[in-house]
Amino acid sequence: MSRLWDKGEALDARILRYTAGEDHLLDARLVPYDVQGSIAHARMLQSRGYLSEGDCDRICAGLTELAAGHAAGEWSIGLEDEDVHTALERRLTERIGAAGGRVHLGRSRNDQVLTALRLYLKDAGEALAQGAEAVAASLTALAQDQGQIALPGYTHMQTAMPSSVALWATGFAAELADDAAGLRRSLTRADQNPLGSAAGYGTPGLSLDRDHTSQALGFTQSQEPVTAVQLSRGKAEAALVFEISLLLADLGRLASDLLLFYTREFAYVRLPAAMTTGSSVMPQKRNPDVLELVRSSAAVAQGALQEILAITGKLSSGYHRDLQRLKSPLFRAIDLGLDSSAIMAHTLSGVEFRPENITLEHDLYAAERANRLVAEQGLPFREAYRQVARELAERDDD
Amino acid sequence: MSRLWDKGEALDARILRYTAGEDHLLDARLVPYDVQGSIAHARMLQSRGYLSEGDCDRICAGLTELAAGHAAGEWSIGLEDEDVHTALERRLTERIGAAGGRVHLGRSRNDQVLTALRLYLKDAGEALAQGAEAVAASLTALAQDQGQIALPGYTHMQTAMPSSVALWATGFAAELADDAAGLRRSLTRADQNPLGSAAGYGTPGLSLDRDHTSQALGFTQSQEPVTAVQLSRGKAEAALVFEISLLLADLGRLASDLLLFYTREFAYVRLPAAMTTGSSVMPQKRNPDVLELVRSSAAVAQGALQEILAITGKLSSGYHRDLQRLKSPLFRAIDLGLDSSAIMAHTLSGVEFRPENITLEHDLYAAERANRLVAEQGLPFREAYRQVARELAERDDD
Amino acid sequence: MSRLWDKGEALDARILRYTAGEDHLLDARLVPYDVQGSIAHARMLQSRGYLSEGDCDRICAGLTELAAGHAAGEWSIGLEDEDVHTALERRLTERIGAAGGRVHLGRSRNDQVLTALRLYLKDAGEALAQGAEAVAASLTALAQDQGQIALPGYTHMQTAMPSSVALWATGFAAELADDAAGLRRSLTRADQNPLGSAAGYGTPGLSLDRDHTSQALGFTQSQEPVTAVQLSRGKAEAALVFEISLLLADLGRLASDLLLFYTREFAYVRLPAAMTTGSSVMPQKRNPDVLELVRSSAAVAQGALQEILAITGKLSSGYHRDLQRLKSPLFRAIDLGLDSSAIMAHTLSGVEFRPENITLEHDLYAAERANRLVAEQGLPFREAYRQVARELAERDDD
Amino acid sequence: MSRLWDKGEALDARILRYTAGEDHLLDARLVPYDVQGSIAHARMLQSRGYLSEGDCDRICAGLTELAAGHAAGEWSIGLEDEDVHTALERRLTERIGAAGGRVHLGRSRNDQVLTALRLYLKDAGEALAQGAEAVAASLTALAQDQGQIALPGYTHMQTAMPSSVALWATGFAAELADDAAGLRRSLTRADQNPLGSAAGYGTPGLSLDRDHTSQALGFTQSQEPVTAVQLSRGKAEAALVFEISLLLADLGRLASDLLLFYTREFAYVRLPAAMTTGSSVMPQKRNPDVLELVRSSAAVAQGALQEILAITGKLSSGYHRDLQRLKSPLFRAIDLGLDSSAIMAHTLSGVEFRPENITLEHDLYAAERANRLVAEQGLPFREAYRQVARELAERDDD
Repeated sequence: MSRLWDKGEALDARILRYTAGEDHLLDARLVPYDVQGSIAHARMLQSRGYLSEGDCDRICAGLTELAAGHAAGEWSIGLEDEDVHTALERRLTERIGAAGGRVHLGRSRNDQVLTALRLYLKDAGEALAQGAEAVAASLTALAQDQGQIALPGYTHMQTAMPSSVALWATGFAAELADDAAGLRRSLTRADQNPLGSAAGYGTPGLSLDRDHTSQALGFTQSQEPVTAVQLSRGKAEAALVFEISLLLADLGRLASDLLLFYTREFAYVRLPAAMTTGSSVMPQKRNPDVLELVRSSAAVAQGALQEILAITGKLSSGYHRDLQRLKSPLFRAIDLGLDSSAIMAHTLSGVEFRPENITLEHDLYAAERANRLVAEQGLPFREAYRQVARELAERDDD
Repeated sequence: MSRLWDKGEALDARILRYTAGEDHLLDARLVPYDVQGSIAHARMLQSRGYLSEGDCDRICAGLTELAAGHAAGEWSIGLEDEDVHTALERRLTERIGAAGGRVHLGRSRNDQVLTALRLYLKDAGEALAQGAEAVAASLTALAQDQGQIALPGYTHMQTAMPSSVALWATGFAAELADDAAGLRRSLTRADQNPLGSAAGYGTPGLSLDRDHTSQALGFTQSQEPVTAVQLSRGKAEAALVFEISLLLADLGRLASDLLLFYTREFAYVRLPAAMTTGSSVMPQKRNPDVLELVRSSAAVAQGALQEILAITGKLSSGYHRDLQRLKSPLFRAIDLGLDSSAIMAHTLSGVEFRPENITLEHDLYAAERANRLVAEQGLPFREAYRQVARELAERDDD
Repeated sequence: MSRLWDKGEALDARILRYTAGEDHLLDARLVPYDVQGSIAHARMLQSRGYLSEGDCDRICAGLTELAAGHAAGEWSIGLEDEDVHTALERRLTERIGAAGGRVHLGRSRNDQVLTALRLYLKDAGEALAQGAEAVAASLTALAQDQGQIALPGYTHMQTAMPSSVALWATGFAAELADDAAGLRRSLTRADQNPLGSAAGYGTPGLSLDRDHTSQALGFTQSQEPVTAVQLSRGKAEAALVFEISLLLADLGRLASDLLLFYTREFAYVRLPAAMTTGSSVMPQKRNPDVLELVRSSAAVAQGALQEILAITGKLSSGYHRDLQRLKSPLFRAIDLGLDSSAIMAHTLSGVEFRPENITLEHDLYAAERANRLVAEQGLPFREAYRQVARELAERDDD
Repeated sequence: MSRLWDKGEALDARILRYTAGEDHLLDARLVPYDVQGSIAHARMLQSRGYLSEGDCDRICAGLTELAAGHAAGEWSIGLEDEDVHTALERRLTERIGAAGGRVHLGRSRNDQVLTALRLYLKDAGEALAQGAEAVAASLTALAQDQGQIALPGYTHMQTAMPSSVALWATGFAAELADDAAGLRRSLTRADQNPLGSAAGYGTPGLSLDRDHTSQALGFTQSQEPVTAVQLSRGKAEAALVFEISLLLADLGRLASDLLLFYTREFAYVRLPAAMTTGSSVMPQKRNPDVLELVRSSAAVAQGALQEILAITGKLSSGYHRDLQRLKSPLFRAIDLGLDSSAIMAHTLSGVEFRPENITLEHDLYAAERANRLVAEQGLPFREAYRQVARELAERDDD
């Protein structure tokens, strides 16, 4: 039998690949954060007398150089390194000798990885918030430039009341500002220092100073008690990805509007040529691919959210290797959130409304007319409404 | 052919059932909130001269009586009422005559339903936060009563380091406090007054005072611009349900621990008899059904979250009837969050750890021993670790 | 403190409500299936000599009467009954005395509930398939009546090539037929007899005939080994709900098309008045609520699918009370699938295309023109394509 | 402001990256399938007189060489190629000149990509089914080798009745066989030839023979009508990923059992050393990382399923660029399904049960004893049950 399912790989290689997964690729972004965490930990150890000044300086200098080398493309994490932590540890020891091993006192892989991840999360969350704000700024600029153009206001996809490009654009801008605020709020959960919790049960036999590293790394507090640290894993990740899914859903709805307005039947907008692509079999057709990809991006974030929630669900307390799987959906959602925001901010700057194609039928003013009848003649609203309806029916009969 | 799929229902009845859905049942909880919103709206109309003092008083009194009657079980919303708003409107007009219709000036069903829902959300979110805190309080009490009992600390479900009932219980208590804080943070999105946005495009022809109702109803601000209101629908709901899913996931992991500790093989805990049920075919067996239902409750909230996100996804801007579907998953998640918290707070108060069955093997102290070797003898950690490993291996050989 | 989260309910009542859940409401539909399963089990017991003919007859007659009484509305399952099984057992014993208890030999609640559920699943799946076929039939009728009306074919929401109402409607009809086939395929997993597996480990000490009940109940086979039965729970349910989610997604996309065609800007279709509703503040507006509810119905099924998958995930083998939670999402999805199909079949029969508003621009024929150039003149396609593009550009310049 | 969210990339590069996405990486696996599809299309064109024999031969030879070169690592798809189709087209034209362009007659990117994808799906689905069967075979082997070892049967995680390693292992084996069958059933949806549907509206002006390519490519039928093709996208993908999620859920539950059995408190099994890893801070600890990663793998598939369903949801008919996003979750789920099966088949072959640690308490035989009382003495089951319960209680009092 041609064992389709079995690539005939050696068992050890397969297990390494299965357990290390894509970590060596995913972890590239964590290098500067892991270095930052390790330096803070080393300095704390020195302050408590567990590390000599010389060793501490060598460790910090070595790590700083490794981070710079990584940023410069001089080395990268390989599959055989397993992850960012092993990669750095191995290279540090090669570089400064046995002293490199002294940084591991009072620290476990469990609190180390989480420290790097949370530092990254805080940066990524802020970047995402800025990305949302950039889209909001594009919308505000659009409202300023073309805001006076009339637009029907829709309910049930039916024209309902008078609106304008300004009302349309600033409505979305408000939601994107709301997303930015939500993204920043979600970082509360990442803003707790896990260092010192070690494998999840603290560091018996040592007297560490957790607040020292909290302060050095910019965490508002040390996470207490130590058993809460591993229990909390996945929650900060889920919170950020949830907010990304709201952000992408808002961008998706914005894209839905533009795709509708861009149909030949509506023809309310012109899209910048750079944002459309040609067809392989239909000459002259310009397809709004970018907007379609933005529309579907929330699906990716929702899937990632679901993945994160399912990974940690029902686990008993304490660290489990399952938690390693959190990185992939987290990074996937973050990257898509950043890219989609950047693309959308650019796209919006080239959208042109086409007032010549937009007409507001007289019935859109019916609610206003009924309101005036109430305000001016004191009719009950239902009666004013019926009177306007009669007027409209008569007009249609003409 | 026996058309299994077709119950032979009359078309009109079927459409009414399909469009009204379960609203008449779901909306019962919204009665007091809709009354509150309508009263605030009426008073604002009066303040702007759109409603006479007499009509306003009659409306407010009528609505107050209707709310009291509903609370007392004197009436309920029927399928023919469609929803809470029609139910109240019809009964108000029956009670006070045509003046009942005057409250609808400057308001649409779209902002009315959202107002009631947000007022309810704010109450429900606070109740959920209190529920989470009640579980945390039970855990704290447990830590005080039985905290000194030793417990292995686990990683990978393997005994790893010394822990205690206190560390175990307070770890979960910290996460439940975190859930309570998250639940309250999530209410930011509900804390915006939609009244005055009407169908989503404001109230042309009228001069309303949106801040008047914001203040009366306790909203921090009026939501601006009016086009943001319908765009924002589903976000406050999703945010609350997301936090409920984290709360239930934490309760579920707590249940997982207890279910593990309650196995015959662990036998670390005794559960209160009231929380276990008998078996139908196995005499003497006591099953931990309550904990199993708590363990699976996060699945319900995750499904509800997913449902909410999918309902609003890709919709073009403006109100759509799709939004009506948000209530069912929202209420389902809220009710389960409240019930599960209440049940779990009670259950925990009856959990008894059985120290006679819990032993910590000597190898759990290995990390502490290695730490001491470093701290006292200045060994590098890796070397201390190897030395301890050798000691343990020798001991096992004995 | 006003304990919002705590309704002050007595503990016992709360636990009963939490553990019995909505079962007493949900289980109404299972009454005939549980009766069917119990009768088959009783007859098998008699055939093996474990039940006298008289007792067997009394049990079967009693159950048949109870089923008839339930169908006639003479009794219903109460919260105190917990579930359908207890409800029937209690009433049977009241009716025929101690013999009622003899039907429980060689059966556990675990295989009993699953038997009823699978019998129901098979009926519900067939009904859903017929519902999908009814929509397909409506589409086919539409294609026959109005099929010759031209319609642009869209890609990227842009008009692309010539199409027709026939092509549009039969495309969807094919997918609905595919859904019906998928629904029926999904029943394979429900078509295995669990009776005789008891609590999950068979019936030591008894010699039952599992194939006897398989045959009586119309199951293709007895599920083997007995330990597979509880492991398989949730899979048949998930498979059916997955297919429902595909069905509802297809109906949702059909609704999306119609909602687009029903916009004032497209104005390609007229919808039957019975399927639209009036606006509360905008006279003359007819809203396509039914289609919007159909569009969002897939969200409900997707949430239910997710809920089901999360309930069973990571459970160790053997029965767990968590499995009780499967019924709620399962029934929710089934009901919505049936209702949405029925509504959509009706709606489609009233859709009228408006050929006077539909025009196909000349560029939609560009691909055909390029094809002809290749077929007739032997040009390479890319060159023919460029030539047609030039022609179109010139025509637009006129 | 340091625009964190904006990497300062040039707009064009960013848009290319956003629209081409990871396609150039993902598409590597599609090379042989796209070549297969193109060759079948070319031969059909020749059979209809649209392509000369010489051109057809050159095209087929060129594509075959390109596929071989790709398999040998001589070239790979670059970002600038966008996707597999452009990559092949460009290289083919470089190799054989203008004739390379003639293969595109009567074909669009839309049916081309789908053809390659479905051919791949059918292979991947079969490989996954074989992977599931390999795990089943490992379980069967385990049952043969160690099957006679007694094991408690659990319900509610409580010991309930006597079971055995054989019953335990064959229960899972049956479910894996069920998964294999489900995976193969799911391929029905992929087994339809999309070629000839072109952009979704057929090939006006040409007379193609769709059954010719169906036969050449091994599709059971040509998909009809052409408008169904794009409507069906995502359904075959979802169906396969749904089945993968059931497969991974079964593997996950198997892992859950083994993780429980591997706890120190149970100590029912020994795991092969190759499948466990050492701890960084706890000497002598062997962690079951592989099983933990298997346990969490269903989360990935569930997220992918959810992503797929959300991508296509609510789209109007016809091709949309959104559909491009289907590949990433599809491939992610397939790869994980294959890897997890392979790893699990290997792991199981090294699992050793430890009978010395497994004891079945006398109460596990209570149901059997009650059954015998009924069978032998004709007692009603409930009475036999009470009698056994009394006996057990007395014994416990001793």
